[in-house]
Amino acid sequence: MKKVDNDKTTARRGFLKNIAASVVAASAVVPAALKAGDDPALIKEPEWGSKLGMPADKNLYGLPSPYEHNVTRRVHKLLSSGDMYASVAMTPIHELSGIITPNGLFFHRSHGGAAIVDPNDYRLVIHGLVENPLVLTLDELKRYPSESRIHFIECPANGSTGWRSPQFNTLQFMKGMMSSAEWTGVKLSTLLKDVGIKPEAKWALAEGSDNSHMGRTLPVEKLLDDAMVVWAQNGEALRPEQGYPVRLLVPGWEGNLNVKWLKSIEFGDKPWHAKEETSKYTMLTPSGKAIRYFWPMEVNSVITSPCPDKPWKDLKKGDLVEIEGLAWSGQGTIKGVDISFDGGKNWVEANLKGLVLPKSWTRFSFMYKWDGKPILLSSRAYDDAGYVQPTIDEEVKAVGVEGIYHRNAIVTWEVKANGEVNNVHIRS
Amino acid sequence: MKKVDNDKTTARRGFLKNIAASVVAASAVVPAALKAGDDPALIKEPEWGSKLGMPADKNLYGLPSPYEHNVTRRVHKLLSSGDMYASVAMTPIHELSGIITPNGLFFHRSHGGAAIVDPNDYRLVIHGLVENPLVLTLDELKRYPSESRIHFIECPANGSTGWRSPQFNTLQFMKGMMSSAEWTGVKLSTLLKDVGIKPEAKWALAEGSDNSHMGRTLPVEKLLDDAMVVWAQNGEALRPEQGYPVRLLVPGWEGNLNVKWLKSIEFGDKPWHAKEETSKYTMLTPSGKAIRYFWPMEVNSVITSPCPDKPWKDLKKGDLVEIEGLAWSGQGTIKGVDISFDGGKNWVEANLKGLVLPKSWTRFSFMYKWDGKPILLSSRAYDDAGYVQPTIDEEVKAVGVEGIYHRNAIVTWEVKANGEVNNVHIRS
Repeated sequence: MKKVDNDKTTARRGFLKNIAASVVAASAVVPAALKAGDDPALIKEPEWGSKLGMPADKNLYGLPSPYEHNVTRRVHKLLSSGDMYASVAMTPIHELSGIITPNGLFFHRSHGGAAIVDPNDYRLVIHGLVENPLVLTLDELKRYPSESRIHFIECPANGSTGWRSPQFNTLQFMKGMMSSAEWTGVKLSTLLKDVGIKPEAKWALAEGSDNSHMGRTLPVEKLLDDAMVVWAQNGEALRPEQGYPVRLLVPGWEGNLNVKWLKSIEFGDKPWHAKEETSKYTMLTPSGKAIRYFWPMEVNSVITSPCPDKPWKDLKKGDLVEIEGLAWSGQGTIKGVDISFDGGKNWVEANLKGLVLPKSWTRFSFMYKWDGKPILLSSRAYDDAGYVQPTIDEEVKAVGVEGIYHRNAIVTWEVKANGEVNNVHIRS
Repeated sequence: MKKVDNDKTTARRGFLKNIAASVVAASAVVPAALKAGDDPALIKEPEWGSKLGMPADKNLYGLPSPYEHNVTRRVHKLLSSGDMYASVAMTPIHELSGIITPNGLFFHRSHGGAAIVDPNDYRLVIHGLVENPLVLTLDELKRYPSESRIHFIECPANGSTGWRSPQFNTLQFMKGMMSSAEWTGVKLSTLLKDVGIKPEAKWALAEGSDNSHMGRTLPVEKLLDDAMVVWAQNGEALRPEQGYPVRLLVPGWEGNLNVKWLKSIEFGDKPWHAKEETSKYTMLTPSGKAIRYFWPMEVNSVITSPCPDKPWKDLKKGDLVEIEGLAWSGQGTIKGVDISFDGGKNWVEANLKGLVLPKSWTRFSFMYKWDGKPILLSSRAYDDAGYVQPTIDEEVKAVGVEGIYHRNAIVTWEVKANGEVNNVHIRS
């Protein structure tokens, strides 16, 4: 028996090799029926089909395939202190699927590097204008009832790199200062029941324990609404660069408000005017005055396929292809996304697909028959809070050209006849 | 100015060190108000608060904190071929939060190791009783409209290790042959529109391209219902041990049917009786006969906190603590979960929390006031298909004691007065 089987196998393999070429050739361009007589079961026997793979005791904490080595976060000297301690590592959103960003690719920005915190020495202090100030260890914090929510986090500077010169022409560097995850922790409103906020407490200062002592002022209303103190991300402990062991989560608001390595929350009767909210994170207006304490990330969208990093390859005139993208709003739930093929003159409605959750990435899709002609491809999202993504002209009118924060204007891709994609600015 | 600030800082630090001891001592056991006069803002200055952290250009594909080094998949010689090529690596579900398992911790089982597949040489063949057999490259496959769904995958042997001797007394080895993720790919029903199944096609053989040539027979109805051909998991490409670059996803059905490194789908008019469905993956019954082609994973649940791997620590009589667990059903959506404190005599209803999705992990929760006495803690899930988790007696009556597959009987934890937890079997 055994011998016969082996002979069969060898014969199979031989036959395979003969048809392999034709099969591969036929399938290299578009889906193709096989030639009569070919046995499609006998697709080329791959080398990995006849040798042992990776044993189960290797990579007990796993990593991506070596063939995915190019799918990483990226940093840029223009977006960093030269030494990369005050910098941002951007997510390859053109490579992502769905609404979960794997933790290894989640964007991060820090002002003095990612602190490596010893969870045994970690303490969270809640104090100030409260009845019962608390100091919690990590174990004590985790004893509170937990909740899990899927939310994006976005740096308010996201998009500025596609706007100001140098005008980046890659999606990763244009919009990669955001990611999305399932977060687990305790609602701050639950913790505050044990703390008891005094009536005069209207503001709170959340401070990180890293060397930059990143601190931001937040209004009590938001903290009591949907803010959380989180310790897990996509099922596991927060990563160091995400604030391990504990960060603040203020769904839909500026990334820097989601304070990492959270050390303390202090309640007071007025804003703190911390350094990050005076030297940074203010919105310059045409008048030269800056808007302060402007928190929510506005309705936004971008087409992720195609994009400059992911052009249309091997598309023939008449081929059907999926146009796909991400829409999000820090002020509510995405209600719809329109797509334009002529740079915003005419619009058609795209389909929302998968989970559509508040303050969360939402995928949109449009099946398009490529006619081989150049197009100006734009997306425009609107949310259930009544906001619509502005044109560049509308945005400039409101906040001018200098400000680098909260730029959520419609993005347009120039898709050339050869499938190449460029970031272009449509102005009237 | 600078000098003054530095002096202030030094003074602060000095004061800190003095109160640190009392703060830490006070908070080491339970949340505690601070002593009058203590300034809780001056919590012990941690060492990481005054030195640079990890720069942004390090770990461009990130990893967990070094303090989480114990949170890994685990293998066991009793559940392996000794050389670990035919083995299973189990997920530390006692360490997970929410309903997403990070890809690095997703359980995997293979029969000849995890194949390392070159995506450029990858081909998917769909053939047999079809009008138009197809050979697709990875790029061609990804051109189809994609969908993303959150589903668990569970090995049918999951739970058998807590049932048969040696009776494992850890949740990771009892129930760690399952994980959950957001999967992205194309619905097979969409692909099959291009293929055209012949009327006489009732069955299909899905085959992997790894050395074990893992192959399973599936009924056409399931493939046309909700089966998918997936290439991404939690936003990124499938990991090698999950079938990179492409696996079959048959939501809610036996893990081994979700064929990895998917090479071909062949349609036919009868089952194939492949080796894995004759030598393995059949359900032995008391009569000595085996049930074949039994696919869906039945309604199930387990309490993940507390559990043998995660006992109750430092709980004082009267402390409130969250009892938390996972419920799932391959036949529908979890409708509810009951909890018993006396080994199944009396039941109370737990709360479902977070997203409640079909054929997906669902978290349940119950806030419990620990009275310091030993309890027998059990959970019992029911789904919207009308199924309820059986007792061990009911299960044994139906499938006997020998079978290792599809054991979804109620799990009971003996929680001792000291908080220690053991896996016990409740029989009448």
